[in-house]
Amino acid sequence: MTDEPSPPTVTEVAAAAGVSAATVSRVLTGRVRVSTSARVSVHDAIAQLGYVRHRGPRRPDRLPQRLPVAALFFEPTARLFHDTFSAKLLAGAEEELTRHGIPLLTMSATRGTIASATQFLTTGGVGGVLLLGGHSSHPLAVSLAASRVPLRATGRPADGLDIPFVDVDNRDGARQAVEHLILRHRRAIAAIAGPPDSPAAVDRLDGYRRAMEAAGRVPHVAYGDFTTASGGHAAAWLLDRMPRLDALFVASDAMAAGALQALRKAGRRVPEDVAVVGFDDAPLASYTTPPLTTVRQPVSELGAVAVALLLSGSEGEQDCPVLPTELVVRASS
Amino acid sequence: MTDEPSPPTVTEVAAAAGVSAATVSRVLTGRVRVSTSARVSVHDAIAQLGYVRHRGPRRPDRLPQRLPVAALFFEPTARLFHDTFSAKLLAGAEEELTRHGIPLLTMSATRGTIASATQFLTTGGVGGVLLLGGHSSHPLAVSLAASRVPLRATGRPADGLDIPFVDVDNRDGARQAVEHLILRHRRAIAAIAGPPDSPAAVDRLDGYRRAMEAAGRVPHVAYGDFTTASGGHAAAWLLDRMPRLDALFVASDAMAAGALQALRKAGRRVPEDVAVVGFDDAPLASYTTPPLTTVRQPVSELGAVAVALLLSGSEGEQDCPVLPTELVVRASS
Repeated sequence: MTDEPSPPTVTEVAAAAGVSAATVSRVLTGRVRVSTSARVSVHDAIAQLGYVRHRGPRRPDRLPQRLPVAALFFEPTARLFHDTFSAKLLAGAEEELTRHGIPLLTMSATRGTIASATQFLTTGGVGGVLLLGGHSSHPLAVSLAASRVPLRATGRPADGLDIPFVDVDNRDGARQAVEHLILRHRRAIAAIAGPPDSPAAVDRLDGYRRAMEAAGRVPHVAYGDFTTASGGHAAAWLLDRMPRLDALFVASDAMAAGALQALRKAGRRVPEDVAVVGFDDAPLASYTTPPLTTVRQPVSELGAVAVALLLSGSEGEQDCPVLPTELVVRASS
Repeated sequence: MTDEPSPPTVTEVAAAAGVSAATVSRVLTGRVRVSTSARVSVHDAIAQLGYVRHRGPRRPDRLPQRLPVAALFFEPTARLFHDTFSAKLLAGAEEELTRHGIPLLTMSATRGTIASATQFLTTGGVGGVLLLGGHSSHPLAVSLAASRVPLRATGRPADGLDIPFVDVDNRDGARQAVEHLILRHRRAIAAIAGPPDSPAAVDRLDGYRRAMEAAGRVPHVAYGDFTTASGGHAAAWLLDRMPRLDALFVASDAMAAGALQALRKAGRRVPEDVAVVGFDDAPLASYTTPPLTTVRQPVSELGAVAVALLLSGSEGEQDCPVLPTELVVRASS
């Protein structure tokens, strides 16, 4: 529809630079650490491809006819509007797709529409599907994995599901939180974990356990379901059983907000009596009293890299990258 | 894909009841006033169709293959997340589509993706398109209107654009606001209008002028652009020119919030010195100081009726319904 030159595709740049598509995306978006040598290779490749492109016809994108890419969710669209995490994922994915001239479709499949949604997605309606909202064990996700439509998930899928994915380093985020609390001279560091059927919750708990064991400490765990209320209950339960508790690693900021309320109710000062570290760096982490130390996930980057991998077309193991997480220290620790 | 019985289509019920598809939708969703006779006809038709459906094969939906319906916006998807109006429109549209087993696609077309988006939408990618976000004079909207894809807009399109639409009664909402202020014994009632290129703003201003003239009053108008800041500037401008100003009809709640701030800054009490009425019944109308009297739009109903008309397939003039607006009286008047 247009004669304007387009930027080289991620696949082209990655091949020329000798790096993965994910690395190219990281360099281009500039939001995540990349080694200097990889950065130089990518910029060299871009310069080189820019030169080549004016001498011959542009190669077509890997996706047929620049069909839209669908971001698939399993809850009503309107509910997504209350969810800043999904908004950031979509923003990252959309920015990367727009660079390739590909429109983003946000699609909700619920009980009443799943039959038509499956038919649409598996019969050439879209160029690819992104599972951004978790729930990769949903029956439709399983159908998609068995179909020929290109598919990428954000977040590790449940065990046994063969869906290529991009993840954040949940284990390392938990390690950073625990080491920070140890450096703050905390002795009794408990964890409030997420639900055991969430791969992210499992990985965060695993990172906590490993870091505690590496430091010769004894792990103490209570479980919540990622909601604020469950974080409050879990904190009260831990206080009851661990009178000397002086630090909490909480697997989501929403649960950490509940824990802060429970600590206040129990007369414990934060951070003087009990230090608290959350996970996500959600907007609320800046507004709690006190503001939350937390583990930041590169959420929009996660969406962008999922798109880059979808467009690259390859599905090898090296293409399930894990993006770094980062401790953000505020007043709660 | 399923053997479960489906509800009769809106078209079938409308035909049997001798009413428009919009009326059927109003009765089914129960959110807007409908005459008792129409309500009885619709329920009779539903009962009758339920009986007929068990004796013969179900007629297929008008939309081919239950393809998804796209709600098209001309700004990035992530920006929609800050917009409660769009969220409510989508919720109403999605609820109605789900009743028919049709998935909703939320699609953003921006400068970089408009070529692919146009191709996708006009070559059978979707069963229909909803223009929910205004901007019906956007080049892509004009292309769609000229194509064969079923299309409905919410809100009256700009003059000269032949796109079937559903609207709310902006003129009558303004009339209700003015009559309310007259009943509150206000003498100098000014208006803060929206931008003249917005059909909704034009209709609200027209309703204000007509109601003022019908009551033998002189209209006074300042213009804003629907933002809070512009409402503040317009209110300050009016106060400067009309020292006896004792009432403001403001064409959006966001501008009314700005006007409240300007009045406070000028030392005018609301409602004692100046009564204020907004438009929209946005969430913020309940949180201003004082809470805003405003004109409520049936937003999710607007989305639902747009879908009902899309599914009905007819494009006659009687199918551009105008949904009633309603004054909600709070402490600002």
